[in-house]
Formats: sequence, C-alpha cells, structure tokens
Amino acid sequence: MLPFFKYNWQVRADYFDLLRTVPYEEIYKKRIGGVGSIAYTLYHIIDVEYNWLITDLNQQPEIEWHFEDFKSLMDIQRFSEERHPTVAAFVAQYTEGGDEQKLLTSEKPPLKYGEVMRHVIAHEIHHIGQLSIWVRELDLKPPTANFIRRDFF
Amino acid sequence: MLPFFKYNWQVRADYFDLLRTVPYEEIYKKRIGGVGSIAYTLYHIIDVEYNWLITDLNQQPEIEWHFEDFKSLMDIQRFSEERHPTVAAFVAQYTEGGDEQKLLTSEKPPLKYGEVMRHVIAHEIHHIGQLSIWVRELDLKPPTANFIRRDFF
Repeated sequence: MLPFFKYNWQVRADYFDLLRTVPYEEIYKKRIGGVGSIAYTLYHIIDVEYNWLITDLNQQPEIEWHFEDFKSLMDIQRFSEERHPTVAAFVAQYTEGGDEQKLLTSEKPPLKYGEVMRHVIAHEIHHIGQLSIWVRELDLKPPTANFIRRDFF
Repeated sequence: MLPFFKYNWQVRADYFDLLRTVPYEEIYKKRIGGVGSIAYTLYHIIDVEYNWLITDLNQQPEIEWHFEDFKSLMDIQRFSEERHPTVAAFVAQYTEGGDEQKLLTSEKPPLKYGEVMRHVIAHEIHHIGQLSIWVRELDLKPPTANFIRRDFF
C-alpha cells in the first residue's frame, strides 16, 4: 500500500510546486464541482488523510483546524508538511495483515482498516484528477499522474 | 489489489448509468483538460486497462480498435462490458507475489508488474476525478467516489 501513498505525496508536492506562482484569486476562486476551489481541495486532501489515518485508525486525539486560517497556498503546503511525518510513520508501519481490523465507531457494519487505507488513497487520486482539470483552465500543464516510472517502486 | 479494481468497475458502471440520458453532444463535446471529452475519457480508461493488463502483462495479441467506431455512450459501455471478463479473470488470478516480475519490453529500466497494476488502478481513479467535474458542469450529481461502505470489502 505504501507505494500508493508515496505516489500521492509526490503528486501533491508537484502541485504545490506548479501552483506557486498562480495568483491568490485563482487558488481560492470558487469553481464548479469537487469541493469548490484549488485551495480547499488541497486542504481537504491533507485534512482527510490525517483524520482517517491518525485520529481514526491510530486513535490519536483529534486536532481541530479551520480552513479559514489558511491564508495562502504556502500556508496549506506548510500544513501538509507539518502533518506528513506523523502520517508517513503510520503508513510505514502498516501492513495488510491489519486490513481486517475493525474501526471502533458506532458505524454498523464497522469499517475495516484496509478499507479506510484504500479510501484515503483513492480519495487523493480522485481529487487530484479534479485539480488537473482546473489547472488546465489556468493554461498550466498538470504534473503527470502516471504511477509508472517513479523511483519508489 | 482486487478491491481497487472492483471499486473502479463499480464507479465506471455508475457513470454509464448516470450519463445514459445525457445528449450525445454533451458526451462527445470537446472539453478543457484530461483527454478532452466524457466519451473519450471512458473509452480511454477501458482501452488503457485492457492494453496494460491483457496485451502487456498477460502477453496476449494486441487488438486494435478506434475511437471513431464508437458512435454512442452505449457503444462505449458495450466495449467495457465485452472486455471486462478477460480483464477480471486476469486481475482475479494476480497476486502481489508477481509484483517484481519484469515486463518484457525495450524500456530501460524495465517496468515491473506490480507497478503497472497500480498504474492502471490510479489511472482510472484520476480520470474519474476529471469526469466528476464535467458531470457537475452538466448539473448532474456525480456518483460517489468513496471507497468505504461498498459491499466488496
């Protein structure tokens, strides 16, 4: 499962790089579909990844943050980088042997760890697909979404 | 790996269902980003999946087809359903034990089977993310992209 996460982290970093010179207005502009803006999409990916993996699966205390506090793409990138070591450490020690473990919530039937891990992976890929459209609308070439030919496999 | 493929196949079927009543012009309309239209995106997903898994990994003879021959969404859906049993049989027998096997092409360094399998998975999720934006532009609600709470995990 780790290669999928590494893929997502590389692609996410590529988007932060690409978008660095795009004006604030375009980054925060409300768009049709997805979660509504480039900024909110990136924030949402990081938020969802952290909450599922660390708060839910790893049962660490919830940390509250608010999108309104992120005033620039750089704030969001810093958020990503700050959360990353905790997330990466959790993913690194995860094995598929844990896939059948049940998440302790009131949800019936309970979610399984393997299901949530894959949900987080698919979640980011899906939202990056949305960003790739918006980036083209800005006349930019989106970072490659290819999984092949990366140095981590 | 199978659950990711099942996810992609369910979501793909959901899109075919959703788009059934959308006029031809909207399905084939050239759009900004991705591979250019809803029709071509769906065709491309099926084509790429078949070619990587069956022609490349499973080393079966290449079958040539041309997008121009697909005159409607129903043609593309039929294409998907016709290719599906072969693809599903290959995925069903695949195990991660095969991940390190090298693909026999002139490419250096050679691609590995596990890398290509994951590429195909990410490829479809990424393109479906793009479709989700275009579908919203048609004032339709895209099918859920959630991986959790499906009956196959």
